[in-house]
Amino acid sequence: MKKFSAVLLVLAFSAAALFADGLSLADQGVFSAGGIVIQNDGVFDPVNGQYSTYGQLLHADHANIFYQIPENSNGHSMVLLHGYGQSRMGWMGTPDGRDGWNDYFLRKGYSTYLVDQPRRGEAGQTSVASAISTEPQELAWFTQFRMGRWPLFNMNSQFPQDEESIDQFFRQMTPDTGNIDFDVIKDAMIEVFDKSGPGILVTHSQGGFPGWTTAAASDNVEAVIAIEPGGVPFPEDKLPEPVDAGYYSVGGIPMSDEDFDALIEKPIIIIYGDYIPEDSDLPAERFWRAGLEMAYEFEDLVNSMGGDCTVIYLPDIGIRGNSHFMFQEKNNMEIADVIYSWLDDRELC
Amino acid sequence: MKKFSAVLLVLAFSAAALFADGLSLADQGVFSAGGIVIQNDGVFDPVNGQYSTYGQLLHADHANIFYQIPENSNGHSMVLLHGYGQSRMGWMGTPDGRDGWNDYFLRKGYSTYLVDQPRRGEAGQTSVASAISTEPQELAWFTQFRMGRWPLFNMNSQFPQDEESIDQFFRQMTPDTGNIDFDVIKDAMIEVFDKSGPGILVTHSQGGFPGWTTAAASDNVEAVIAIEPGGVPFPEDKLPEPVDAGYYSVGGIPMSDEDFDALIEKPIIIIYGDYIPEDSDLPAERFWRAGLEMAYEFEDLVNSMGGDCTVIYLPDIGIRGNSHFMFQEKNNMEIADVIYSWLDDRELC
Repeated sequence: MKKFSAVLLVLAFSAAALFADGLSLADQGVFSAGGIVIQNDGVFDPVNGQYSTYGQLLHADHANIFYQIPENSNGHSMVLLHGYGQSRMGWMGTPDGRDGWNDYFLRKGYSTYLVDQPRRGEAGQTSVASAISTEPQELAWFTQFRMGRWPLFNMNSQFPQDEESIDQFFRQMTPDTGNIDFDVIKDAMIEVFDKSGPGILVTHSQGGFPGWTTAAASDNVEAVIAIEPGGVPFPEDKLPEPVDAGYYSVGGIPMSDEDFDALIEKPIIIIYGDYIPEDSDLPAERFWRAGLEMAYEFEDLVNSMGGDCTVIYLPDIGIRGNSHFMFQEKNNMEIADVIYSWLDDRELC
Repeated sequence: MKKFSAVLLVLAFSAAALFADGLSLADQGVFSAGGIVIQNDGVFDPVNGQYSTYGQLLHADHANIFYQIPENSNGHSMVLLHGYGQSRMGWMGTPDGRDGWNDYFLRKGYSTYLVDQPRRGEAGQTSVASAISTEPQELAWFTQFRMGRWPLFNMNSQFPQDEESIDQFFRQMTPDTGNIDFDVIKDAMIEVFDKSGPGILVTHSQGGFPGWTTAAASDNVEAVIAIEPGGVPFPEDKLPEPVDAGYYSVGGIPMSDEDFDALIEKPIIIIYGDYIPEDSDLPAERFWRAGLEMAYEFEDLVNSMGGDCTVIYLPDIGIRGNSHFMFQEKNNMEIADVIYSWLDDRELC
């Protein structure tokens, strides 16, 4: 095992370029949403038993939200939920220090609500503990995220490939403090929308799972933008056959008819990056192929039921070189433009 | 054990008031600083061994920094480090949804750098694991933070005492993902200052420990503002006798002559809130009394050596009702004014 200091890498981390023009905020702040309170039996005694268990409280399982409201608000909120092993910071910038989607959508007039899901990041207080792993496994994720075959990046990759950017990217990961519970996350997300008011839900990867159920449950969700969701839902009697793909089996997420009907009242766009070939020796690529095919089935079903669903595989519209982290890559603003245009078509801007 | 939902509390959480006037930013973003990289032996194989251990990487032990640069910059940075069990969110707002010190100092022209220390919050990736506790113990902290004798707040407390604010406050706590290592934190903080350039270091509570050593080590630290530091440093041959106070023994932090000399080249202000009586039946109050007395000794020593140190016990300047979390209480901006005036006197604004 080698262990070395990252001092030089960080010293070399280039100063972020200033905004091309300023960003004017009407407000910003943080709050928690959702969660539970646990209270021990007994009476707390601060004089003789400060550290005893009697009567002690634990507030846990909430989400933590950083919000920013632009001066020139367009009246819509946008709630962004990260994926597996990530926190909200992925929306707030790029590994090479450029603007993130948060900055882009603030400029477009959206009030942004950036979520750390329950038991992650600044929302770490948990009622169910999880062991923190110190096992190195970042190259599994580099592979799963379709960045390339380490140490090589995919041909024409849009990921910033200098040493400092790669270092910054890996450091975005942050562990779960408790087990991932999609219902706990959904419950917190519904309360985020209670606070944000009507708005667009943006999910990345695993965030899609509680994203679909949140969108079905909250009247405040106006539309869903799912960036490479970990799965897509189907009514229980229309579930596709699971596909054995790579390390994972890829199937539809069972959803009640009632929830599915509520979900597809809202416009939905699902976006996939590049490097999802029809066949591959790479289990990670086979996984995403199966997921993309499942998304096309979902699109057909939703539209056949009168819904409004668009699935975009970026190479099909001429945008190439993107991994699972398209919102942080060199052409991240080009992809944001695709989303903004889709929102514009639906008068959600 | 009772377990109840916080849904109603959060629904009742009042919408934050908008800024009285807007806030114009030249830039904002996030980055990691410090940390190490661990690499397993062997060669990683994405095709046949995506989840094997061979060659896998772990980037860990970095700090995570959210920075904001105001349009009307005064040329100084301000780096803020939280205390025990907290994250940077405490600087970003108040439990009752008002502006935090981050907003205040941005308006005054400081570029703010808000740190999640290594193994906390969004900087959770760790090379040394820690068990996550689910043991309720928040009333121990309510007591230690001198808020009152639960369920009563101290007389004339400035803490917002409605149910929602108390709920929001407790949810600020977030656990360590690994053991707290002041040297790891100091090393990361030095790199934060490499990135921020010359600036003011603001620490809260336990953040004071790595704060003093950071200030001694980094030429970029222009001044230190320590909000109720967990301890103060002394040269090894001038260490005061430890005082047995409450649950903790309170002593000086041993520091080399060289580091102490480097530290006291910088102006230092240390601020304590209210409710630190000369004697008390409450161990928590005795702890803070011992800490305050130690800070006065530090002040005398620094000034006798030609340094510039000011210790303020807020009631002595007519500001009453503050706990350990003065930067989030109802008069938080009055206390920020005290700090700004101190910075102004030293032409650090």
